[in-house]
Amino acid sequence: MSLLVVGSVAFDSVETPTEKRDDVLGGSAVFFSYAASYFSKVHLVGVVGDDWPDEHTELLRKQGIDTSGLQVVQGAKTFRWRGKYMPNMNDRETLEIHLNVFETFDPVLPPEFRGAKYVFLANGSPVTQMHVLDQVPNAQLRVADTMDLWINLQRDQLRTLLKRLDGLVLNDSEAKLLTDDENLVRAGHKVREMGPKFVVIKKGEHGAMFFSRDETYVMPAFPTPDVVDPTGAGDSFAGGMMGYLAAAGNFEPRTLKEALAYGTIVASFNVENFSLDRMKQIGRADVESRMADYRRMLSF
Amino acid sequence: MSLLVVGSVAFDSVETPTEKRDDVLGGSAVFFSYAASYFSKVHLVGVVGDDWPDEHTELLRKQGIDTSGLQVVQGAKTFRWRGKYMPNMNDRETLEIHLNVFETFDPVLPPEFRGAKYVFLANGSPVTQMHVLDQVPNAQLRVADTMDLWINLQRDQLRTLLKRLDGLVLNDSEAKLLTDDENLVRAGHKVREMGPKFVVIKKGEHGAMFFSRDETYVMPAFPTPDVVDPTGAGDSFAGGMMGYLAAAGNFEPRTLKEALAYGTIVASFNVENFSLDRMKQIGRADVESRMADYRRMLSF
Repeated sequence: MSLLVVGSVAFDSVETPTEKRDDVLGGSAVFFSYAASYFSKVHLVGVVGDDWPDEHTELLRKQGIDTSGLQVVQGAKTFRWRGKYMPNMNDRETLEIHLNVFETFDPVLPPEFRGAKYVFLANGSPVTQMHVLDQVPNAQLRVADTMDLWINLQRDQLRTLLKRLDGLVLNDSEAKLLTDDENLVRAGHKVREMGPKFVVIKKGEHGAMFFSRDETYVMPAFPTPDVVDPTGAGDSFAGGMMGYLAAAGNFEPRTLKEALAYGTIVASFNVENFSLDRMKQIGRADVESRMADYRRMLSF
Repeated sequence: MSLLVVGSVAFDSVETPTEKRDDVLGGSAVFFSYAASYFSKVHLVGVVGDDWPDEHTELLRKQGIDTSGLQVVQGAKTFRWRGKYMPNMNDRETLEIHLNVFETFDPVLPPEFRGAKYVFLANGSPVTQMHVLDQVPNAQLRVADTMDLWINLQRDQLRTLLKRLDGLVLNDSEAKLLTDDENLVRAGHKVREMGPKFVVIKKGEHGAMFFSRDETYVMPAFPTPDVVDPTGAGDSFAGGMMGYLAAAGNFEPRTLKEALAYGTIVASFNVENFSLDRMKQIGRADVESRMADYRRMLSF
């Protein structure tokens, strides 16, 4: 099935307790696309400025990602984010955000993208996300991410969006913020009752939780000793998940569970280096090999 | 196999964001024993003052726990702990500790306990824990818990103890403190390299991690929406684990993994009410029923 992602494309500057990188390739749609590409063809929609080097686009294209929806705005600059990770590598502080060209990003989908069946709305305001949904009337699976920013600033619009979604992916602090409930099991179901058929709460190094009407479960993170840069972990998790679903062509409970496991595995690779550096080194066989370890780990 | 636990027996006063209990039955050896009793006969060694009501001892006895090693010191008071849980129910603050009779507790095992094969050293100083080990020369499985207090105050003695253990159970912040490593996967293996054949890191609502020379794995917590009081979760986890091992009569890798899962399940019941109130309501069948749900949750 065709998979469409709309989200941010960015330059990230990242400080960890031991290392530092400036202006490396990042953005929610980039991490998502690359992670999904191990499983499925991905159509990326995003925007960059004229400071965007062709080599980044080339890297994505070589991986089979359709970048024809990546709009380049002349005379404008690409979204830039700078952040710093705490020693636990799970908490981070945003030091700088320059939305630049992303601030006025109003995605207009190329006609050939409008038949997309699997759609992921990565980082963006609920209003923008709804605008995308309006353009994919035949979508079979609509999943979005959200952020504390939108919960705080556009809660009503987010609530409207939630009623139009099949799935929502958000992190633990966001789920607590949205529901005012500190128990994640209750919070997950409360978010689900706001509209989406399923909800995934990402807990960083502690894995992810899944909630549907009939199911509640936890997927622990794959225990890697080599956490170098967690940036994009959530987006690569979502990419692995959606890529697997799109390839499977269904989102039955069993497929969804496998998809969460694949998302977990791809994210565990992503955090092992900066930017896409680790994901660039691996292929589907590496994903399958670690998945076999993960299955072994969880069976008793 | 016979299972021996040596640890604290206490009156707990607990404040949660919504409720409060004073002077309820608690203590590491109590939570441990009750949790282990679903699987195995347990011999408890501990100390209380003359303020200890017979009904508490009776409750344990009725569950099949051997309380003949519970020493009652006349003219002295039982260990008292008062704590307060933060809204996330995972972090807590100790408001008061009165060690009382526990301060000078120097466990001398009754002769009939000295042949114990499975031994758990619950809350206590490494010196006291080693003194217990000296009295069980035929033990086949020696597992201990430790606390930040001992890592800070008696690190050398703890390091000596570690060399004499088969297993150590400790929580995530303690593992980081002991190894000065914020990555739990690395921290777990560093603790293991200090002596014990296996290490279990407890992560509260996020489950537990296991480390041996050949294995690294994570067991997520059972997702319960009803977390009323987390006090004793770690001890009931250890109790379920050790009780299952003692019943199985071996600690092969496969048995250990099942034991961690049983510990997880028993702990998930324990947090559903104050003191032993939830554990008192359930039996082995309830444990097995939730275990079946847990196995389903982890299979895909």
